[in-house]
Amino acid sequence: MTLQKVNLQEKFNLFQEQWRPKIVGELNGQHVKLAKLQGPFVWHHHENEDELFLVVKGRLCMELQGQEPIWLEPGEFLVVPRGVEHRPVADEEVHLLLFEPAGTLNTGNVQGERTVENLERI
Amino acid sequence: MTLQKVNLQEKFNLFQEQWRPKIVGELNGQHVKLAKLQGPFVWHHHENEDELFLVVKGRLCMELQGQEPIWLEPGEFLVVPRGVEHRPVADEEVHLLLFEPAGTLNTGNVQGERTVENLERI
Repeated sequence: MTLQKVNLQEKFNLFQEQWRPKIVGELNGQHVKLAKLQGPFVWHHHENEDELFLVVKGRLCMELQGQEPIWLEPGEFLVVPRGVEHRPVADEEVHLLLFEPAGTLNTGNVQGERTVENLERI
Repeated sequence: MTLQKVNLQEKFNLFQEQWRPKIVGELNGQHVKLAKLQGPFVWHHHENEDELFLVVKGRLCMELQGQEPIWLEPGEFLVVPRGVEHRPVADEEVHLLLFEPAGTLNTGNVQGERTVENLERI
């Protein structure tokens, strides 16, 4: 197996659709995903997964249960622990790197229209 | 518990020493670490841990068993799977984000002068 690096910008250039995370790496049972977001998502939590959100481009507002929203700029990350209700909102398009266990559903406990299963690998 | 974001640049500003990774986040039994590297490291591998190297600043050469070295620029990452011999080398100082299981030793199977235990959290 020949190892290959991943260039984040090249991967972001491969897709346009929003709210459909793409898998770009895997290690220790965790996935590295990239996503483009704009607008409000759905409030949800994850029963068993902590999630890391690292902003690569744009500005993300993470709304959180029981505390003020946290604004994330490029080069900033937030870990949302399992069980914590959250809702990402982006006024303008945000490019995001996600780190979370393989199999994590984007909508957590709230399966519905916004749920994406069988994530694409790019 | 109030959640707080992490600004990578602010964390890099908190330390100067090279080859001593700092823990800046934890999720799902994994650590997010930051490190400053310069010069050659030691050849090593990890028995049970895959490692992700994401370059934030500078240019990193990852030497690898059985294949050509991989040069990583800012915004590029490489996953080195468990068992694969590797040696990071940096001509000039590199700022690096690492993602790996909690407890991963920096020198893997080769414990010695360069091994850092009891990593600092910043």
